[in-house]
Amino acid sequence: MPRGRFLTEADLEAIALGAAILGTGGGGNPYLGKLRARELLRQGKVMEVISMDDLQDSDTVYEVGGIGAPMVGIEKFEKGDECLMALRAVERQSGRPATALISSEIGGSNALEPLIAAAYAGLPVVDGDGMGRAFPEVQMTTFMIYGVEGTPAALADEKGNSVVLSATQDALWLERLARSVAVEMGAAAGMALAAMSGAQVRETAIPGTLTLAQQLGEAVLSARAQRLNPVQQVLDLLGGTLLFQGKVTDVDRRLTGGFVRGQVQISGLDEFRNEQVQIDLQNENLVVRRGQEILASVPDLIILLDLESGEPITTEVLRFGFRVAVLGVPAHPKLKTEQALKVVGPRAFGYDHPFVPLPDHRAVPNEEAVHVLDSR
Amino acid sequence: MPRGRFLTEADLEAIALGAAILGTGGGGNPYLGKLRARELLRQGKVMEVISMDDLQDSDTVYEVGGIGAPMVGIEKFEKGDECLMALRAVERQSGRPATALISSEIGGSNALEPLIAAAYAGLPVVDGDGMGRAFPEVQMTTFMIYGVEGTPAALADEKGNSVVLSATQDALWLERLARSVAVEMGAAAGMALAAMSGAQVRETAIPGTLTLAQQLGEAVLSARAQRLNPVQQVLDLLGGTLLFQGKVTDVDRRLTGGFVRGQVQISGLDEFRNEQVQIDLQNENLVVRRGQEILASVPDLIILLDLESGEPITTEVLRFGFRVAVLGVPAHPKLKTEQALKVVGPRAFGYDHPFVPLPDHRAVPNEEAVHVLDSR
Repeated sequence: MPRGRFLTEADLEAIALGAAILGTGGGGNPYLGKLRARELLRQGKVMEVISMDDLQDSDTVYEVGGIGAPMVGIEKFEKGDECLMALRAVERQSGRPATALISSEIGGSNALEPLIAAAYAGLPVVDGDGMGRAFPEVQMTTFMIYGVEGTPAALADEKGNSVVLSATQDALWLERLARSVAVEMGAAAGMALAAMSGAQVRETAIPGTLTLAQQLGEAVLSARAQRLNPVQQVLDLLGGTLLFQGKVTDVDRRLTGGFVRGQVQISGLDEFRNEQVQIDLQNENLVVRRGQEILASVPDLIILLDLESGEPITTEVLRFGFRVAVLGVPAHPKLKTEQALKVVGPRAFGYDHPFVPLPDHRAVPNEEAVHVLDSR
Repeated sequence: MPRGRFLTEADLEAIALGAAILGTGGGGNPYLGKLRARELLRQGKVMEVISMDDLQDSDTVYEVGGIGAPMVGIEKFEKGDECLMALRAVERQSGRPATALISSEIGGSNALEPLIAAAYAGLPVVDGDGMGRAFPEVQMTTFMIYGVEGTPAALADEKGNSVVLSATQDALWLERLARSVAVEMGAAAGMALAAMSGAQVRETAIPGTLTLAQQLGEAVLSARAQRLNPVQQVLDLLGGTLLFQGKVTDVDRRLTGGFVRGQVQISGLDEFRNEQVQIDLQNENLVVRRGQEILASVPDLIILLDLESGEPITTEVLRFGFRVAVLGVPAHPKLKTEQALKVVGPRAFGYDHPFVPLPDHRAVPNEEAVHVLDSR
């Protein structure tokens, strides 16, 4: 019996655009995933999205997504069923068949990977994820931050290789081992991990992010159609702040150890002229600085949009001359607890500054989760 | 009911020495493994060795051994139960409990690893292995050369991490993925792979090598005690040729991608004075050259022994000034078939010369296996 809503091709279009925005520069480009997902719909497969409230405690939910470096995803086409193969490997290991899937990260291509795997497997996808954005590492999910075991986990590649991480000392070791396998697999693999009960998902996931991605995409598409300013639409929906706008003057970007790392320089336009900001990135945009002043930093979202079209600018396409708006968007409260900041705060990325949260400009900011989680 | 013989501390001493000789410079130093194995005997554990003829077709035999780079083994102490943990992980994955273990490689520390894992698990160890020597890569066993599936396979480290390679495209991918996991685990891990039936082991393993290692060790120890020439004892037992003797004048050795690679220059002494040879190594000694002339090459064994004591000189301790005998020993016939040479012949190691086998000087050379295997 269907519990949720069924996605259309138009929904996929909007989700892919919104997911790229939430990707904060990384997460991989959702374009190819969108094409693959659309092809599955055209073949008659269905993609059912259920809300977290529809989960039974007895559900078994696996977190799935691609793992690798985003620059590779462009050139190395996935066969399409890598996440499904990883899911099957981890189900065999754990002996617990999946009843639903959830995205590890809504930002970027991993918004679509669970939809594709679920369409193959005939399973619903939970409306939510473990990041509310994109992060570069496997352990940086609210699932693991709030105590869900990551293993057994599995990786699979398009050549038919699959690897099960059957036990790891901790979540950092899960990341290290998974990353080294993913790099060996050609820097792109499907991954399934963290068998969760429905109750665990309700407690730890960031809710509603698949729908949020779709709303974001719809807002940008509709603004373009109506010749409204898409940047303002995004700011309104996410409660964000326009930190800067300007022209990209320099991009220093390199692929090391499965990650894209680098810096971007932007020179101001309009009300920001004569100013300069620098953005640090590790797959995603991590920190925006004006001189010594930190304008925003992880886990808050730093989003680059094309000034005119509102198109999100991802790390791998970024280049000299792009005219961009730099948006700062407050992260979900589950990413800002003391427990979460240890894993996704500035220090987790090697910075020595504390996290100073951006204000939430939405009409009804969502802060209720913090106290519950911090009191554990 | 015991089927085999039970090892004593003296047996372990001899096996460790003989295994180091068969390690052809690599395979890891068996010294620490010997200490750990001895400690288990002193705790009352038993190490039972059964002959290949004692195997039932219905037996389930796992190949176990350490994987990594030999130079690391010296500094990174194993906890001791890594191979057991890997065995448990692969048993869980395959659903087939082990009834016996066998060494992946008799040369070096992997002669002892199965004895240790088997002592923990209460299992016997089959008298034989998959190399009859040491080789640097996982797929270079007679098991895999003659068609045994390597996966599911598992790796485990001393920190409690375990990884199952549940399917790989081929044996080379098994090696690539296992190696990258082992390197990430700190370049030393326990590995269990290739669940085999008793019949498969009888067909593919190199028989009697645990006993051969013990005989070699005993011969050297006894020669030392009787002030006989241990080098001659080793040559007699293995049917080998004294290729050279001299002084090490240069060692160029580096650790790359989990392997030790390098070259060794040796200047002749006695009847070899005014001559020079060069040995190439990748964990093990691969090729001996005098100028352009190839004196011996893989899969034949190239063994360096200290001229006086007969102590085997391993890659990691080799240095300027060592006075060594260079022995060439014919490989087991199962390593010299056309099928085997594709995997362990000179070309498999990047050389463009064909394999020219060394003569076998034993009274009863063992060549019967070749025709059977090549006719398949």
